[in-house]
Amino acid sequence: MAIALGPNQYGKAETRVVRIDRDSPVHRITDLNVSTSLSGDLIDTHLTGDNAKVLPTDTQKNTVYAFAREGIGEIEAFALRLARHFVDTQEPIHRARIRVEQYAWQRIGDAPHSFARGEAAVRTTTVTYDGTNTHVVSGVEGLVVLNSTDSEFWGFPRDEYTTLGETQDRILATAVNAHWRHGTHSEDWGASYAQARQALLDAFVGTYSYSLQQTLYAMGQQVLERQPTLAEIRLSLPNKHHFVMDLEPFGLTNPGEVFHADDRPYGLIQGTVQRDGFPSAEDAW
Amino acid sequence: MAIALGPNQYGKAETRVVRIDRDSPVHRITDLNVSTSLSGDLIDTHLTGDNAKVLPTDTQKNTVYAFAREGIGEIEAFALRLARHFVDTQEPIHRARIRVEQYAWQRIGDAPHSFARGEAAVRTTTVTYDGTNTHVVSGVEGLVVLNSTDSEFWGFPRDEYTTLGETQDRILATAVNAHWRHGTHSEDWGASYAQARQALLDAFVGTYSYSLQQTLYAMGQQVLERQPTLAEIRLSLPNKHHFVMDLEPFGLTNPGEVFHADDRPYGLIQGTVQRDGFPSAEDAW
Amino acid sequence: MAIALGPNQYGKAETRVVRIDRDSPVHRITDLNVSTSLSGDLIDTHLTGDNAKVLPTDTQKNTVYAFAREGIGEIEAFALRLARHFVDTQEPIHRARIRVEQYAWQRIGDAPHSFARGEAAVRTTTVTYDGTNTHVVSGVEGLVVLNSTDSEFWGFPRDEYTTLGETQDRILATAVNAHWRHGTHSEDWGASYAQARQALLDAFVGTYSYSLQQTLYAMGQQVLERQPTLAEIRLSLPNKHHFVMDLEPFGLTNPGEVFHADDRPYGLIQGTVQRDGFPSAEDAW
Amino acid sequence: MAIALGPNQYGKAETRVVRIDRDSPVHRITDLNVSTSLSGDLIDTHLTGDNAKVLPTDTQKNTVYAFAREGIGEIEAFALRLARHFVDTQEPIHRARIRVEQYAWQRIGDAPHSFARGEAAVRTTTVTYDGTNTHVVSGVEGLVVLNSTDSEFWGFPRDEYTTLGETQDRILATAVNAHWRHGTHSEDWGASYAQARQALLDAFVGTYSYSLQQTLYAMGQQVLERQPTLAEIRLSLPNKHHFVMDLEPFGLTNPGEVFHADDRPYGLIQGTVQRDGFPSAEDAW
Repeated sequence: MAIALGPNQYGKAETRVVRIDRDSPVHRITDLNVSTSLSGDLIDTHLTGDNAKVLPTDTQKNTVYAFAREGIGEIEAFALRLARHFVDTQEPIHRARIRVEQYAWQRIGDAPHSFARGEAAVRTTTVTYDGTNTHVVSGVEGLVVLNSTDSEFWGFPRDEYTTLGETQDRILATAVNAHWRHGTHSEDWGASYAQARQALLDAFVGTYSYSLQQTLYAMGQQVLERQPTLAEIRLSLPNKHHFVMDLEPFGLTNPGEVFHADDRPYGLIQGTVQRDGFPSAEDAW
Repeated sequence: MAIALGPNQYGKAETRVVRIDRDSPVHRITDLNVSTSLSGDLIDTHLTGDNAKVLPTDTQKNTVYAFAREGIGEIEAFALRLARHFVDTQEPIHRARIRVEQYAWQRIGDAPHSFARGEAAVRTTTVTYDGTNTHVVSGVEGLVVLNSTDSEFWGFPRDEYTTLGETQDRILATAVNAHWRHGTHSEDWGASYAQARQALLDAFVGTYSYSLQQTLYAMGQQVLERQPTLAEIRLSLPNKHHFVMDLEPFGLTNPGEVFHADDRPYGLIQGTVQRDGFPSAEDAW
Repeated sequence: MAIALGPNQYGKAETRVVRIDRDSPVHRITDLNVSTSLSGDLIDTHLTGDNAKVLPTDTQKNTVYAFAREGIGEIEAFALRLARHFVDTQEPIHRARIRVEQYAWQRIGDAPHSFARGEAAVRTTTVTYDGTNTHVVSGVEGLVVLNSTDSEFWGFPRDEYTTLGETQDRILATAVNAHWRHGTHSEDWGASYAQARQALLDAFVGTYSYSLQQTLYAMGQQVLERQPTLAEIRLSLPNKHHFVMDLEPFGLTNPGEVFHADDRPYGLIQGTVQRDGFPSAEDAW
Repeated sequence: MAIALGPNQYGKAETRVVRIDRDSPVHRITDLNVSTSLSGDLIDTHLTGDNAKVLPTDTQKNTVYAFAREGIGEIEAFALRLARHFVDTQEPIHRARIRVEQYAWQRIGDAPHSFARGEAAVRTTTVTYDGTNTHVVSGVEGLVVLNSTDSEFWGFPRDEYTTLGETQDRILATAVNAHWRHGTHSEDWGASYAQARQALLDAFVGTYSYSLQQTLYAMGQQVLERQPTLAEIRLSLPNKHHFVMDLEPFGLTNPGEVFHADDRPYGLIQGTVQRDGFPSAEDAW
């Protein structure tokens, strides 16, 4: 029973590139964390350390900075340029996967070149290109949202280890991690992202929820319904538990007003919402 | 040469209390991290484990939640209520120090009970009360700001270990950590905080900077000038270095457009700006 | 083109259970972080919020603690018991995946009930059970190792973005993240883990390295060779760069003695080593 | 009421220097995180941005690397050399404070140049020098220890917010953060550190505890008693709560065997143990 090399990839992770567009007195800022990952004909370096086909990760990093010089634009477009470059110029490289995180900044008042970090949520993309096929996944991570009512949880099965009470009113809070795969690649990426982010928020706000699963599905469905060119969306939603404090020992009622925000453990709800008619693409993720 | 107990305090750190004000259909949210710290006649528990004077940290936690039931309001006022409670009701406790962090939430659109986490910056207070004297320090932490120009750094001394070039144009970025001590305790705490935060931003934006020290002083000065009842402000400003990438090896210029955002090491500039006429109060910090 | 629910799972993440075995005066400690994840006939809760088939995540947490009462033993065995319980007792649940992290403690001297946290590296397992098939993956994460010599990197291709010099002597450092899939499930799990961990270290130490890929393959090969019942191993190795400082400006040589340990970006080398004769099992990961 | 500059300092934080001693085939590794902080006649840069007296933080970083070239030795000695250099060579600098963290590595087996990261606990020093006086503080941070019995907590006062039960047997766990000030500066720093660390462990193990305060004092006392040249020790001990799980709902007893390791909130016990006969030195911390 022979031992052999299986799937593998390598690259430079977390290149922190910041670009200032200063062609006008009103500057713009783009703040990215870029990770590149290449695979292909790489058996030699694994078996013998022969690096003749190993474009250094340092070169990959340099390429990110050099490409940023020509302008970044939307992160999906930037990642596409990088992915194509590596596969099209390095013969042994058969697939490139580029992941980009974009940090939010907002202008301070109307100051032309002053910025403050915005929301903690991060816009992301993962682009995969193998010389023939291209996959583009866009996403948002760490978008923390909370409904202070309109959430219930009851009717669940009870076994010998069940102690949880049913509730008709609870806080529902989560950090939205959502990634959606584009079925076409000619989007206005910025508009598409804004629309998807808004759909997630609208569905979170608009769903009277009996389970976080129900909210998850509603969010995914809303995103797909608004953009017919999206093939699927995957959501991972931690249930950020807020427990009603029992204040009775102190002679106090607590009608859903005072909560303990707990750290661990937490529920974790993960699910995919997909549209018929698009081929699946496990390689895109 | 005898060995003896010196200064000491104990308490419950990081009680995560969330309050929903739901007296109207439009809910409000207050999200806090509260740490209490008590000191006093505590020698017995240190020397013999006699806990007769040790109000449990669990009780301190309970007190935070119980007090939240009556409403929280501004964090300075909430901390004052807690501090006075512990000192005034526990005879052996001679001093209470309450630290509160408040996390920012913003309403999602005009939804009545849906919220999204806002900026990463945290509003803080530290209140100290010893039965006679009260100190209130307010602050902001992690307010990340960046000027993409109008920052220079030159004219510094050069010794045998100096290799840094002078620059007439650089990015100046920092995470503002600022804490200011109130000279009076009847402020409209919310308005005072908003004004101080705005003063910090205005000074950061408005200062053409030759050093981060200069910017620090301008920020502190601006805060004190706008609020005559503030006694002092202490700032700790990491210099979040953004290095211009050398793109010449790739045949590219880089006129201040493409930067590497570095993690470590980082400059760290710390300073106090103070107003004459207020007694110093090391105990407040 | 209809929109529909795709793959999904839910569970309780990061239940922190600590067990003290105190049947003898010499106590033993087991410190775990357990995450459970269930999937099955869960479409109702997603579409309508009907929770009749949703065993609460709170119940899953309770089950972890209750099962710990009977003893934990090796984490693979504990995860197997949990996985089988959920699938075999909950008709709508068709698959359970249990992930366990175990933190290292070591006895302080020969004290019978005193312990200090040991190495930062974490032992892990992921067990998947669907009523018929069982998969067991064991692993180690965060095992930080460093060779101060016997590492070279040269002979790589150079394109227009390549500036990296070749080196015949560098530091090679990484944080080993390795997970191996068992082909059989009757192992002495503790002995198997110890042997795999030792094989990783031995291969890291014993490989004169021309690339981190070569070291990765050698580590994976060594693990598989020593345990014929292991089907495959997946490694993810960040290249923790240590850059030789240029001390020439200060009139100093630096023959590989003084380094800057950099944070980001970092190389990331990922690869699988697999043995013929075992069916693949993507579902195990 | 004039506004003026108060106390201030600046420097380079978190310079990550790794040194390999390779004068013999058996290498040794020193892995440090060094922060420098200078104060003095720095009013000009704050008020006008005149940097004529501001030795750049970049130069401070270079100095750390250059000094490491000559060998590092014990961190206290290394910090002393750096502190004296800055004050003695830069006329406007009146005080230097150098903080060093040292990460633990251990040799892998008997391999001559292979290492694995050791315990998570970090050895630290803070050295302060003002041209005349020198202060040396040594310490350990993050030393996580746990007693699985021999800890009680009862006899505490009960007020209207007290719900905690008394206990005659609990887990006592903490992460030791301890810093001790040397009264003399000619120690064998390495031996002194080893002895202090051992004293902390011995006292933790050897104290039958009725409160974490009692354990804290015993630890501090033990350190001072073993080293007559230590002036004081400051300890900060988070009470890492391990709550006995209530398994009664499942028909199970739980005689101190199954615990939930909680994250927040946590008790925080802070105290100083000091020896008569040494002058106090607030400036050392």
